[in-house]
Parts: sequence; C-alpha cells; structure tokens
Amino acid sequence: MKAAILTIGDELLIGQVVDTNSSWMAQQLNFVGIRVSEKVSIGDDASAITKTLKRLLNEVDFIFITGGLGPTKDDITKHTLAAFFGDTLVMHEPSLENVKRIFKNAGREINRVNIQQGMQPSKAGIFINHNGTASGMCFENDNKVVVSMPGVPFEMKAMMLHQVIPMITQRFHKVNIIHKTICTQGIGESFVAEKIEDIESSLPENIQLAYLPSVGQLKLRLSGYGSATEKEINAYANKITERISENVFGFGEDILEEVIGRLLKQEGKTLSTAESCTGGYIAHLITSIPGSSSYYKGSVIAYSNDIKIKQLGVNEQAIEEFGAVSKQVVEQMAAGVMKITGSDFAIATSGIAGPDGGSPEKPVGTVWIAVAGKSGIFSKDFKFGDNRERNIVRASLTALSILRRKFLITAKE
Amino acid sequence: MKAAILTIGDELLIGQVVDTNSSWMAQQLNFVGIRVSEKVSIGDDASAITKTLKRLLNEVDFIFITGGLGPTKDDITKHTLAAFFGDTLVMHEPSLENVKRIFKNAGREINRVNIQQGMQPSKAGIFINHNGTASGMCFENDNKVVVSMPGVPFEMKAMMLHQVIPMITQRFHKVNIIHKTICTQGIGESFVAEKIEDIESSLPENIQLAYLPSVGQLKLRLSGYGSATEKEINAYANKITERISENVFGFGEDILEEVIGRLLKQEGKTLSTAESCTGGYIAHLITSIPGSSSYYKGSVIAYSNDIKIKQLGVNEQAIEEFGAVSKQVVEQMAAGVMKITGSDFAIATSGIAGPDGGSPEKPVGTVWIAVAGKSGIFSKDFKFGDNRERNIVRASLTALSILRRKFLITAKE
Repeated sequence: MKAAILTIGDELLIGQVVDTNSSWMAQQLNFVGIRVSEKVSIGDDASAITKTLKRLLNEVDFIFITGGLGPTKDDITKHTLAAFFGDTLVMHEPSLENVKRIFKNAGREINRVNIQQGMQPSKAGIFINHNGTASGMCFENDNKVVVSMPGVPFEMKAMMLHQVIPMITQRFHKVNIIHKTICTQGIGESFVAEKIEDIESSLPENIQLAYLPSVGQLKLRLSGYGSATEKEINAYANKITERISENVFGFGEDILEEVIGRLLKQEGKTLSTAESCTGGYIAHLITSIPGSSSYYKGSVIAYSNDIKIKQLGVNEQAIEEFGAVSKQVVEQMAAGVMKITGSDFAIATSGIAGPDGGSPEKPVGTVWIAVAGKSGIFSKDFKFGDNRERNIVRASLTALSILRRKFLITAKE
Repeated sequence: MKAAILTIGDELLIGQVVDTNSSWMAQQLNFVGIRVSEKVSIGDDASAITKTLKRLLNEVDFIFITGGLGPTKDDITKHTLAAFFGDTLVMHEPSLENVKRIFKNAGREINRVNIQQGMQPSKAGIFINHNGTASGMCFENDNKVVVSMPGVPFEMKAMMLHQVIPMITQRFHKVNIIHKTICTQGIGESFVAEKIEDIESSLPENIQLAYLPSVGQLKLRLSGYGSATEKEINAYANKITERISENVFGFGEDILEEVIGRLLKQEGKTLSTAESCTGGYIAHLITSIPGSSSYYKGSVIAYSNDIKIKQLGVNEQAIEEFGAVSKQVVEQMAAGVMKITGSDFAIATSGIAGPDGGSPEKPVGTVWIAVAGKSGIFSKDFKFGDNRERNIVRASLTALSILRRKFLITAKE
C-alpha cells in the first residue's frame, strides 16, 4: 500500500514555517507498514489542490492532507475537496457541538464564521477534533482514500494517532505489525552494527532492524511483519539489549532526562549540576520535564574560574596546575555542588565547546565529565567534534547517561 | 518567475529526518522575489526523479534540487540528471581537486569511490562545494533552469547563498528587491499592527510589510520591489522602529542573545544569571554564542528554595511571606548572584512554568523577572500561557530583552 502526504498552506511556500507535520506523519505511516512515496507542499490555491489530487490519485492508495481547514477566507481545503468529490457541505451537528464546546470553554462568544466550521461534506466520514474547531474528513473513491486533517501540529497528531490510523488499519490496510524500539546513548551506529552483526544477520525475513540516529543518541527499531509474534520481537530485542546493555536507557518513546527523573523519584534521591562548557543545557533538559522540581535542586553554572573557586570550592592551585578542563577540576566541581546543595548526586562538566579555545593537547571538543554520588566520583574525558552546538548536546546527554549507568542502575540493584 | 523545490532522499519518506532545507530555500528564494509554487520530496529512485522533473519543467521556471549527491550507491541524482538531459559524466578537474583537498585536510586516504565524485555532467555549470565533496550542478534547457545541490544543510546553504542565488539573480532573474527586517521582542502581532496601522496603510504598492512571528519574538520584514529605493525602505523602517523602539533589538539576522553579548563586550561589562523557572535556558542561550565566556560569569540555577537561601542569600522570611514567585524574592536573587559573581549585571527569574504548581492568585504562566545593575534593580511580573516549553522560552527572551532595554541601551547613551 502506497501513500502520499499533501501539506497545504501559503506559509509553507514562503518558508515562514518548517513543515514538521509531514515527517511525523511519514514516520507513523511507516510504522504501520504504509510506504510514503511522495510528500508535496502547495499553497492555498484551489486549482493547485485539484490538480495535485488528480495526479496523486493515479499513483497512490492513500492521500493524507493537512492544512487549510481554518475559519478564514484563505482556508479553502474543505470547499475544494467537497467540489472535487462532487459533494456538498451540510451542517454536521457533532462538529458544530464541538465548536460550541471549545468556545464555551474559552469563555468566548461564537460568531457566524465559527458556526460555518460545523459545515462538512455530506458523504465524507468526519473526525471530531478534540483539540480545535476544524473537523477532519475522510473521502473514499474507487478504493482510494483521501484524509484531510487540520494543520496545527498537536491537533493533527491527536487525530492521526487516535482516529485516522486506527480507522485505516482496521478498514483498509489490515496489517500485523509489531514494533519495539531500543533507545541508546553513547554508542555509534557502526559500533552497534559490529557488536550485533550476528544477531542482525540471523533475523528472519519478516523482522527488520532500522538504525535511527540523532545528535548524541541512537534508536534501534525492530519491526515484525505478518506472522511475526510479539514474543519473537521481544526475544530479539532482549538479545540486542544484552549485547549493548550499558548504553540502553529505555524503550519506545522514552527520553533520557525523563528516565533519569523517574529513577531519581523511585529512589527518593536528588540531583544537582555544575556546568561549565554545557552552559546550562543539562539544567534545561532536566527542568524541561514537568515535576522536576521534586528531585532537581539546581545548578551552579561556573563559566568563570572565579565562580568555580568561590562558589564550588574548586582549588585555585588545581586550576593553575591542570587547567579548568581537567579531571581534578571537574571532580571538585561535582563534589562542590553536591556539598552546597546537599543533593544525593551531582553532575559536572568542563570542556572546550569551540569554535575557539582549543590547544594541541586539549583540542576543541575535549570535555571532562564527572558524576558524584555518596559512594564516590566517576570521571572521564571525551573528544567530541568541532561544532559548538553539537558538542553542548553530546556532552549533556553523555553526562546524564553516566549518571544513569554508573549510579542509578547500580543503586537500583 | 516561479520555482519548485525538489528534495530527494529515502530518509525523508520514512520520517527519519525533518526536511529543514526546503523551508530555508523557500525563504531565500522569496527574498529575491522568486515565488515557490510547490515543494516535493521523493525517494532515491530514478524513475520518480525523472517523472517529477518532467512534470515540474512544465509548470515552473526554476527547479532547485537537494540530496542524492553522496558517493554511495543509493545516491543517484547526478547520474539521473545527466541521463535526463542527455549528457554524460566527465572528469571535472576543479571538483576532483576539491575532493582531494578535503581528504588531505582530514588526513584521510582517498579511494576509488571518492575519485568518482570528481565526475560531473559535461554540459552543466558546476558549483564547487567548499564544505564537502559533492559539487553542485546547473542545467539550462529551453529557458528553464535546474540546479542540483548537496542535501547536507550547511553545505547546501553556503552554496545557495554564495553561488546559486547570485548566479540566478545575475543571469536569469534580474530583480531589484530590497529587504529590511526589524527584530522585536515583547510585543505581539496585533499590538504592532494597531500601533503602526497608519504607517502600514501609507505604504506604496511596491513596498510590502510581512509579520514573521515565532515564540517570544516577532520580525517585521519590509520588501521593496521594482523602483523602490533603499532610502525609501529605510525611511519606513525608521518610522516603524520609532513607534515601537522599546521592543526593537536589532535588524536583519540579529539574534537577541548575540546582540546582548555585543553590547556587553562594547561596554566591557559582565553578566550573571539566577534562574528558577527558566531552569538554565537563559544560561544556555547566552553560552550558545561563541566567545560568551568573555562576558558571562555564570549562573546559579536555584530550583530549590534551599539554594535560593544558601547560595543566593535570599531572605527565608521573604520566601515564607511572599512566596518564591514574588517581586521580593526575584530581586534578592538578582542582587545575590551579582554579589557572589561580582558581575556588572544580573538577571533573575522565578515563576510557575507548569503544567502543575499554579494557584488562583498565581496561575501557571506567572513569572517574576528582575534585572539588576550597579544603578539599581528593575522587576516586573508577567502572565505567559499554560505551555511549559513556551513559558520557559518566553520568560528567557523577555528577561534578556529587559536587560537590553533598561540597562544596556541606557548605559550606551
């Protein structure tokens, strides 16, 4: 089964917004075994929409559309689709009720334009939008399916996940697909490939493994098709996880900073950080998780040596002798912040993020990371790359990962 | 003149990467007055590429392609384009030299596959890639132009900005377009529209104003076409800037945290921060700018009241009496971090980022911000929204903006 994704909106063509919808949709469709052969973005233009629909209906089984369903004049997707399928708009009571509900909750008056949002094509299947006023639509024609959804990402995502994909997989594309994603940190694609070469080559034809890398992280996704069972997939996932267990921090949609928060909460432990080269990014990751105030005490961002000395109690002589980017200093930073915050664990970083500040002995990308707990301090140096932004992200995720591997997992056992 | 953007790569269709290239390219093209009527993503598939090229050549004047120029087997764009235009590949010495240079700089051996990257279509114009091994190509055919560039964003961007756009505007699309972008913080689209209503309606037909909002920021772009002069554009930009001068932090590609860094450097002043609800995001913004260590001392991220008291010297009684999210506490935080770091200026934040922790008096989104200088402290409370992520960003940008408006600009005068 082949699909196309069509995103509609003038704002996409002047580059005002980055279209994140279509890659997310492609991922979800891929997930249930529907292959996307093309993604197209066009403007709010009836003739372009009609022309593109005609062309795509000759090439694919499904077309998934987002955008152009708002209440203003320039949103023309609904009218254009109805005309294309020879349909007319009629008042759809559940859609109107939904619009009224949303306005009532927001304490706002409903006007004539908003009431129009209750009008829907008479022959289409309608998806009520629980997060907004624009309903989704599903047209069926000659065994082809055209689904239209709102363009606001969180409205589209909820509709796609909870209504569109279940409908598609139940009615049109009955598949048995099982996924299991393994989330890793601190190990590269080629290293994993080498370590699990024998497992990968022993996979039966109906089970596939995909490598999904991003800065500082790597996800491994096992997908079983047809007769593959959950037990089989889990067995392979376990084999892979055993082989690289140090680096596996979670499964599925797990996020490293959330996993760490969960582990700290379970143990009733607290964390603080002392950041130099990561400049607050670790603190930002941790505090981006709701409820983090229950286990995160805070941080001292010691960009200057002065703060390292005065606030964190780093030995001035150690900085002079070994430099700020050194085992000695980063360990003292971790111990220092643990002491002043009274936390159970502490993370410290000191490095050269770049582009300047490197030397032959300590080139740009050199980062020392220390993690301290009541049981002792672990520290290690890393050589990341020459891109400041990526160095900050990689050092931060690596530091969180060390906390998990060396202290939280052990503490749990 | 109409253009299409064609991005090629299997990774785009499985949703592994978000295509940021095409929106950036659309922006640049829009900038020189070339209207993008369609963006398409397809896989590394010769028949799909050929079919799409044929179709688009009937519809637009320019096609800008990225992707599929790598050295591996699945990168087929170069061969497919050469075949499409009835051309053959020949060794292009400057391209080969470029490949050799890059391998030499990286201290790596060049192999047979890499040498193949020197081969280019004989009739195409070639763009040397200063940041990578894949050259760009330009085919001309029946007054239509097809440009192919590498898919790696920073390689493509440098090639597009410094080679492709200058070539296009000199040879094919001679336009007189002048842009001036005004960068603002702390004022919404509708407020600006109201404040400059008379200026906007007085704009001549050949000068247009676009509102480009993002979280916590708003850019206003004036574009003059045809006979519009730079003097005219500047006069309107000045009029608008005067009207909302408090909120204008820069022009063109200015970034708030970079502007602040520049102002601090000019004055030889230093900054520190004390963050509660923003959790390190202000520190992260500041330290994401190369060279920030010369003016940024560091931060105390006081997520717990304990740290507010012990590290920043906040009065325990003030927390009890007024709460951590209060004028009193945030002012003491700013004064405290300024004292311990010895910086000239300090920023402090305390608020309820959400989703939990709100109360009827202080709902989610309430944030107190204080900025301290040698001349005194300025503080103010804000009501942002109910989205944690957006609240953190908005509070951080607002705090930086206050530093600029209340202390740095004054200091300059």
